[in-house]
Amino acid sequence: MRYRTFMSPRERVARLCLGSLLATSLVAVTPAIAQSLQDVKVPKTPLVLKSWGSFYVGGESVARTTTELGLGLPGNLTINQMYVQFMVPKDGNRVPVVLSHGGTLTGKVWETQPDGRMGWAEYFVRKGYPIYMPEQISRGRSGFDHATYNNVRAGIVPFSSQANIIKLSNEQAWTHFRFGPTPGVPFADTQFPVAAIDEFVKQAIPDLNPSLPDPNPNWKGLSDLALELKGAVVIGHSESGRYPLEAALVNPAGTKGLIAIEPGDCVGYTDPQVASLAKLPILFVWGDHIDTPGSILAHGPASFASCLDLIDRLKAEGGNARMLHLPDAGLHGNSHMVMTDKNSDRVADLLISWIEKNVSKRRSGGHHHHHHH
Amino acid sequence: MRYRTFMSPRERVARLCLGSLLATSLVAVTPAIAQSLQDVKVPKTPLVLKSWGSFYVGGESVARTTTELGLGLPGNLTINQMYVQFMVPKDGNRVPVVLSHGGTLTGKVWETQPDGRMGWAEYFVRKGYPIYMPEQISRGRSGFDHATYNNVRAGIVPFSSQANIIKLSNEQAWTHFRFGPTPGVPFADTQFPVAAIDEFVKQAIPDLNPSLPDPNPNWKGLSDLALELKGAVVIGHSESGRYPLEAALVNPAGTKGLIAIEPGDCVGYTDPQVASLAKLPILFVWGDHIDTPGSILAHGPASFASCLDLIDRLKAEGGNARMLHLPDAGLHGNSHMVMTDKNSDRVADLLISWIEKNVSKRRSGGHHHHHHH
Repeated sequence: MRYRTFMSPRERVARLCLGSLLATSLVAVTPAIAQSLQDVKVPKTPLVLKSWGSFYVGGESVARTTTELGLGLPGNLTINQMYVQFMVPKDGNRVPVVLSHGGTLTGKVWETQPDGRMGWAEYFVRKGYPIYMPEQISRGRSGFDHATYNNVRAGIVPFSSQANIIKLSNEQAWTHFRFGPTPGVPFADTQFPVAAIDEFVKQAIPDLNPSLPDPNPNWKGLSDLALELKGAVVIGHSESGRYPLEAALVNPAGTKGLIAIEPGDCVGYTDPQVASLAKLPILFVWGDHIDTPGSILAHGPASFASCLDLIDRLKAEGGNARMLHLPDAGLHGNSHMVMTDKNSDRVADLLISWIEKNVSKRRSGGHHHHHHH
Repeated sequence: MRYRTFMSPRERVARLCLGSLLATSLVAVTPAIAQSLQDVKVPKTPLVLKSWGSFYVGGESVARTTTELGLGLPGNLTINQMYVQFMVPKDGNRVPVVLSHGGTLTGKVWETQPDGRMGWAEYFVRKGYPIYMPEQISRGRSGFDHATYNNVRAGIVPFSSQANIIKLSNEQAWTHFRFGPTPGVPFADTQFPVAAIDEFVKQAIPDLNPSLPDPNPNWKGLSDLALELKGAVVIGHSESGRYPLEAALVNPAGTKGLIAIEPGDCVGYTDPQVASLAKLPILFVWGDHIDTPGSILAHGPASFASCLDLIDRLKAEGGNARMLHLPDAGLHGNSHMVMTDKNSDRVADLLISWIEKNVSKRRSGGHHHHHHH
């Protein structure tokens, strides 16, 4: 039995909702801070790039009516393409790192932090790693398939046939992302830059993952991207926390290492799938305050335990898998947003150390950027 | 009377539809080319940046129900924030340039070209200009207000109350963007990289501008951005072609120069508005083949003529306004996508030359990036 029968995308959302309903009551959010442009911090040394830009992976052509297009004549449309932004450092030939963002977020989460600090993208680049930031298909610059919404609008299909669009309230971000025990109240040791909460919530946009087909096309998208890169470490977070493993199950040829940061859970993998995954180095990462009431259950103690169980199964198959629970590494107060927390550089250092020890530094093939102009 | 009564966003869309209905019949699209990562061209010299990153401008908090959120408890949500990505060159203190993309597009249009060439963002940076790329509110990383869609899905409001979502078919892109006289058939002298059409159409994502309130919040967003930058040249294209003028009408204090590339039209400005705009240098830019049948009318001969009329009115008020019709400057075969065309560098050079001659090179205030870490 394939594990997908255990939890479809819709069931996953339903489970998220269940978690949310247990959340605490609302209080007022903190007042807005100054506009964030003024907060942007400039590094003391310049960023020197061999290349910078973006491209798309995949995409398929589908026929659409005028109603579905919303404009013009009927014709074909490209959907399910995956936008990827990249930065390659001038000096550095380390293994490429793919950074896949979580639910309601976009590639923005790897850029400038809400309080103006450097994000993981630039930090990894400055450590010599080429960085590739896909936008999940159905989000941001990857776009989504809008046909059903327009058919509903025209009365052609029942209104219930359009997928739910999800986004947490600003208040629930506090408990869901474990900034504090209740909205507006941070943990005493929180690493999240709570003074910049009003800037952080701007990063969240409507999440159309419930509109995606099954299997989720992002899995093949990440697998194809890793193949095109001739080898990459694939990092996923939260909603996309399992994507690195899913990508490797589509095709492990490009995935040289997998990092799953607080995935929803680790359940449902078959024995053959575990045997396949055991051939790759895998790191799971979790922040602090896992048992926060009002945290979405999918990142809580049961999920954490399910990933420890998977690690045991991987090890039994001879795999190289481990859990990096940040408090065990001396980092306390990290939230679900470990890449946004005030100690994000230190968390990145731990990931980089793991990559250096567990993943070959150089890719098997030549550099993909062989054209010059 | 304010010009907005002449053409609301919805009327504008209706007009676009009218244009599309005149388009020619469909033919098959060209076959897919190789994946675009392999096509990415690496410059011979590195890109050296003082800073790179992103931030948000604006945003407002609104109350939302659980149904409207799609997840969790009711609470507040931030909407109408404008995502801005930036690159500041290490050596260069020229006036910042704001690049606002057109309909169905995102900031991607300023990045790597569909055929792998350097886009305008990096080109301007290498010429010494700090570049700021906002994503239109309701698109891409700026997100959109999804409340009505979820209320429709729940049967709470009529299905007709959700806004139309628009995207042209891949075939109509040929005539709408004036790559050729009919789909799949390029003009003999076209500057558009038609061999990469399959990569270009991936840049197009669903356009939710019909969901925006009136006045369009992007106008104030751009005005606020220019103010925060302490002076900027604001460039808009197509759907956002008029935005630079609208931003200046919201507040001209930050807009040091305005460039409108093939705006839908130039009609509806009152005499006081013209008098206000006449205080700023304004450049209008148009490509070739303006009278292409099947082109959206809003970029055709009538629109072109309406902008010439506005230029006459601006000049009568003592303004510095002119039309850069690219064939008159010796550039032939340019499409509606002048920033994507094969001669995009030459078009950029013309814009840079205009900026150097008409806009002060240095900003009035200090550099905004005054924090270091």
